[in-house]
Amino acid sequence: MDRLLNKCRIRSSLARECLAECLGVYIMILFGCGSVAQVTTSENSKGHYLSINLGFALGTTFGVYVSRGVSGAHLNPAVSLSLCFLGRHPWTRLPFYVFFQILGAFMAAATVALQYYDAIQLYSGGHLTVSGPKATAGIFSTYPADYLSLWGGIMDQVVGTAALMVCILALGDSRNSPAPADLQPVLVGAVVLVIGVSMGSNSGYALNPARDIGPRLFTYIAGWGDEVFRAGHSWWWVPLVATCAGALVGTLIYELLIEVHHPEKGLISESSEDPEL
Amino acid sequence: MDRLLNKCRIRSSLARECLAECLGVYIMILFGCGSVAQVTTSENSKGHYLSINLGFALGTTFGVYVSRGVSGAHLNPAVSLSLCFLGRHPWTRLPFYVFFQILGAFMAAATVALQYYDAIQLYSGGHLTVSGPKATAGIFSTYPADYLSLWGGIMDQVVGTAALMVCILALGDSRNSPAPADLQPVLVGAVVLVIGVSMGSNSGYALNPARDIGPRLFTYIAGWGDEVFRAGHSWWWVPLVATCAGALVGTLIYELLIEVHHPEKGLISESSEDPEL
Amino acid sequence: MDRLLNKCRIRSSLARECLAECLGVYIMILFGCGSVAQVTTSENSKGHYLSINLGFALGTTFGVYVSRGVSGAHLNPAVSLSLCFLGRHPWTRLPFYVFFQILGAFMAAATVALQYYDAIQLYSGGHLTVSGPKATAGIFSTYPADYLSLWGGIMDQVVGTAALMVCILALGDSRNSPAPADLQPVLVGAVVLVIGVSMGSNSGYALNPARDIGPRLFTYIAGWGDEVFRAGHSWWWVPLVATCAGALVGTLIYELLIEVHHPEKGLISESSEDPEL
Amino acid sequence: MDRLLNKCRIRSSLARECLAECLGVYIMILFGCGSVAQVTTSENSKGHYLSINLGFALGTTFGVYVSRGVSGAHLNPAVSLSLCFLGRHPWTRLPFYVFFQILGAFMAAATVALQYYDAIQLYSGGHLTVSGPKATAGIFSTYPADYLSLWGGIMDQVVGTAALMVCILALGDSRNSPAPADLQPVLVGAVVLVIGVSMGSNSGYALNPARDIGPRLFTYIAGWGDEVFRAGHSWWWVPLVATCAGALVGTLIYELLIEVHHPEKGLISESSEDPEL
Repeated sequence: MDRLLNKCRIRSSLARECLAECLGVYIMILFGCGSVAQVTTSENSKGHYLSINLGFALGTTFGVYVSRGVSGAHLNPAVSLSLCFLGRHPWTRLPFYVFFQILGAFMAAATVALQYYDAIQLYSGGHLTVSGPKATAGIFSTYPADYLSLWGGIMDQVVGTAALMVCILALGDSRNSPAPADLQPVLVGAVVLVIGVSMGSNSGYALNPARDIGPRLFTYIAGWGDEVFRAGHSWWWVPLVATCAGALVGTLIYELLIEVHHPEKGLISESSEDPEL
Repeated sequence: MDRLLNKCRIRSSLARECLAECLGVYIMILFGCGSVAQVTTSENSKGHYLSINLGFALGTTFGVYVSRGVSGAHLNPAVSLSLCFLGRHPWTRLPFYVFFQILGAFMAAATVALQYYDAIQLYSGGHLTVSGPKATAGIFSTYPADYLSLWGGIMDQVVGTAALMVCILALGDSRNSPAPADLQPVLVGAVVLVIGVSMGSNSGYALNPARDIGPRLFTYIAGWGDEVFRAGHSWWWVPLVATCAGALVGTLIYELLIEVHHPEKGLISESSEDPEL
Repeated sequence: MDRLLNKCRIRSSLARECLAECLGVYIMILFGCGSVAQVTTSENSKGHYLSINLGFALGTTFGVYVSRGVSGAHLNPAVSLSLCFLGRHPWTRLPFYVFFQILGAFMAAATVALQYYDAIQLYSGGHLTVSGPKATAGIFSTYPADYLSLWGGIMDQVVGTAALMVCILALGDSRNSPAPADLQPVLVGAVVLVIGVSMGSNSGYALNPARDIGPRLFTYIAGWGDEVFRAGHSWWWVPLVATCAGALVGTLIYELLIEVHHPEKGLISESSEDPEL
Repeated sequence: MDRLLNKCRIRSSLARECLAECLGVYIMILFGCGSVAQVTTSENSKGHYLSINLGFALGTTFGVYVSRGVSGAHLNPAVSLSLCFLGRHPWTRLPFYVFFQILGAFMAAATVALQYYDAIQLYSGGHLTVSGPKATAGIFSTYPADYLSLWGGIMDQVVGTAALMVCILALGDSRNSPAPADLQPVLVGAVVLVIGVSMGSNSGYALNPARDIGPRLFTYIAGWGDEVFRAGHSWWWVPLVATCAGALVGTLIYELLIEVHHPEKGLISESSEDPEL
C-alpha cells in the first residue's frame, strides 16, 4: 500500500500547493454549500440561518487545516492577491492558485448537487430556478436581496472582505498579539462566522471570488442556465471585483493603522509561541 | 479504597483498550442519542436540530477525551478499518475494537431509553413505532428521508464519511498543520458538528457503523421489533457498508492529494508541539 | 489603594478557598439563572433553550476560572464529595466548601431576582408562582416535568451527574489524554453544555446540590413560599441526593474502566503540559 | 510598497495606542451593530437574538486581537478607568483612550448605516424612528425595555459590568488560573457572549460607555434626531455612568475576595505560560 502510494508522489512544490488549495477550497465549499442545501431543502426544519453561518465557518476552518502546511491556505483569490501586494507571496504563482481555488469550488458544488439531488428534485419540483419561491441557485452561489442597489452591494462586499482581511492579518501578526499558530484555522473560521452573522443578509457574504464563481459556473452548466449570470442585474461580477477591492482596502487599513507602527525590532510583544528566539 | 480499586487492575493492553473504546462510544452515544430524545420528546421546545448537532459533536469530543490516551479513540469501526489499511493499527485487534464499539453504543442506547422512558411513553402514547408522526426509533438509529433513493443514500454516507476521514487525517498530520494534540478531541467534535449541519438532512449522518447498528439492535430487542430492519427499504445495511467505503475513499483522497507529497523529512512544517525534536 | 487592599488580606488558606468557592458558584449561577430569567420573562424572544444551555455552560467556565487557582474550583458539593472519596481532598474541608457553595448560589439567585425584578413583576403579574403558565420559580431552581415519575427523576439525575463526573475525571487525568490545563475550564463548561442539550428536558439538569438548594432557599424566603419544597411531589431532595449518588457512580465507572488500568509509571502518555518532568 | 508604508510610520507610543484602540473598537462595533442590523432588518429570518450575542462576542474577540499587542485592548472606557484605579494604566492616557474609543464606535456605526442603508430604508419605510414597531435606533445604541424602571436599569448595568470586570480580571490573573495568553481574546469574547445570553433583555447590555455613546451620537447626527437622547426617560446617561460604577464594583469584588489573598510570592500557582520565570 505504502509503496503504491509513494509512486504517486509529486516533487514539484507548485503542484503540491495547487492540489492543497484545490482540496482546501473543496472542503470549505462542500460544508458551506451543503449547509445551505440542508436548510433550503428541509425548509428550515433541519437548521436555520445560523447553521449556514456555522457551515461556512467550520468549512473554512477545516479547509485551512487540510492545506495550510502545504500551501499556506489562502483558499481565496482575494487573499492571494493581497499577500502578493504585501510581497508575502510570489506573483507568478497567483494564476495557478486562483485556477485551482476555482476548480475546488466547482467540484464541491458538483458534489453537493449530487448529494442533494433527490432533495433538490423534491423541493423544486424538478424546475431548477434562480429566483422565485422555490429557487435553488442560491444553494451554490450568492445573489443580492431584492432591495439592494448596485452600489449598496459593492459597498457590502468591500466592507465585508476588508473586515475579513483586517482580522486575518491581525491573527497572524507576530508583533501584535497573534493567535496560537495551531489554532489559527479555528479563529479564521470564527471570522467567517461573525461576518455571516453580521453582514450576511444583504448579499450572502461571498467574500471570496472562487467561492462564488466556481459554483456559479457549475449551476450554469448543470441546468440553471444563463439566468445565473443575469439575475440581480448581472450581480455575478460584484463578488469577483468588490471582494478583491475590499481585501486590498482591508490590507491597507491594517498596515496603516497598526503594522507599520510596530517598533523596529518587535522586542516588546514577542509571541509566546517562539520562546526559543 | 485505592487498594480495593487496584485489585481490579487489568494488565492486558488489549483488554484495557477494549474497555476504553467501549466507554468512549458509550459517552458519545449517550450524549448524541440523548439530544435526539430531548428534541423529539419535547417537540422542539427544549432544543432544535442544532442541539442534536451539538449533542453528537460534543459527545464525540468527550468520548475521545475519555479513551484517547488508552486506545487512540477510534470510536468508529470505519476509522479503525482505515487505520488498519494505512498500517497504523494492527489488523488482529480490529474485531475486538469493533465488538466493543458496538457494545458501547448498545448500552448507551439502553441508558437513553431508560432515562427517557417516561418521556417516550408520553410522546408515543406507549406505541413504539419506526415511522409515522410519533415515531421514536429515530431517537436511536438513522433512517433515510422519504424522498431519498437508495443510491442517493449510499452517495450521502460515502461523501459524509469521506469528508470526516479527510479532516481527521489532516488534524493529526504532523507534516501538514496539525491541531494542538490536546485539543484534537475538540476539533474532531467540530468535524462532526459541521457534517451534521451540512449533511444531516438526507439520512441523519450515521458516519459510523457502530453508532448505527448498536442502537438499532437495542430497538429491535426493546420493543420496536423487526420494522427497524425493514424500514426505508431495508436501510440498515447502508450505514454499515457505505460508511466503511466512504472512510476508505476519504483516506485515499487525503493520501493522494496531500500526504504522499510531503517532502521526505518533513523539515518544513514541524508541528509546534514538539520543540525538543 | 494597594495599601488599603492589603489590609484586607487573609492568610488562612481555608478562608481563601471558601471565598473562592463562594464567588465561583456566584458567577456560575448569576449567568445560569440569569439566562433562564431572560428566556422566561422575554417569552423566548430574547433567547431559546439553547441560550439557557450556554448560560450555565459559560457560567461554569468563568466560575472555574475565577476560583481554580485558589480552591481547585469544585463549585459543586457532589464533586467535592467524590474528590474526598478518591482521597484528593481532605474530608475536614468538605462542610466548609459545601456551605460556601450554597451561600454563593443563594446570593446569585438574590442578584438575579433583583436584576430581573421589573421583568418578573410584569411577566407574572406580581404573583410569584411555582407552577402554572406564568410560573417563575423555575428561573431559580429545578422542577421535574409533569410526566416524570420519581424513579425516572432519580435515574435522570444519577445518569447526568455520573456522565459529568466521568468527563471531568477524564479531562484532568494526566495518564490519559488530558485537556490543556489552562483550557480545562472551557471544557468543563462544554460538558455542562452537552448535558443540558441531551439531558435537560426531564428535570432541568441540576447536577449540583448547591446550584439547586441555594436558589430554592432564596425563593422560599423571597415570596414563592413553601410550595417550592412541595412541588413535583417534594422534588427538592432529589437534586441533593441523586446528584451525590450519581457523582460517586461516575467516579467508580471512570476508575474501574480506565484509571486503575493505567500502566504503573504512566510513562506512555505523559501530558504535554509538563515537558520539564 | 513597503517603503511607501514605512513613510507613514508613527513613533509616538501614545498615538500608536490610540489608533489601535480606535480600530479595535471599530471592529467590535462593526460586527456587533452589524448583527443587530441584520436581525432587525431581516425580521429574524437571517438570525435570532443569539446571532446578536455572537456578533458582539466575536466582535470583541477580534477587536482585542487587532489591538492587544499595541494598546492592551481596553476597548472600553470603563475598563480603562478600572485599570487606572488599580495603577495598571497611567491616568494621563485615560482621556486619549476614551476619545479614540468613542471615535471608533462612531465610525463603525456610520459604516453599518452605510452598509445597511438600503435595508434600513426598506424596513423603516424611510422614517428613522427611535421607538415604535419599525424603530431602527436600537440597531446602533441601547434602549431600555418598556417595563424597566430607572433604578432597575442602573442595577442591570452595574451588575452586568461588574460581572464582566470580575471575569476579565480572573482571566488575566497570573496567580489564579489564567487563560492562555494568546487565547484570552477568545475568552473575553465568551464573557460578552454569556452576559448577552443572561443579562441582555432588560436594556441591551451596553457594558461599555463608548459602545453606547459613539453610535448614539451618530444616530443623533444622521437623522434620528434628539429623540435618541430623550427616549427611555433620558436613558442615554445610564450606560455612561452605571457601567463605570459597575466596573469599579467588579474590580473591588475580585480584589477583595480573590486577588489580595494570594500568597506573597505566588509560588503555588505559577501560570504555565511563563516557564522561564
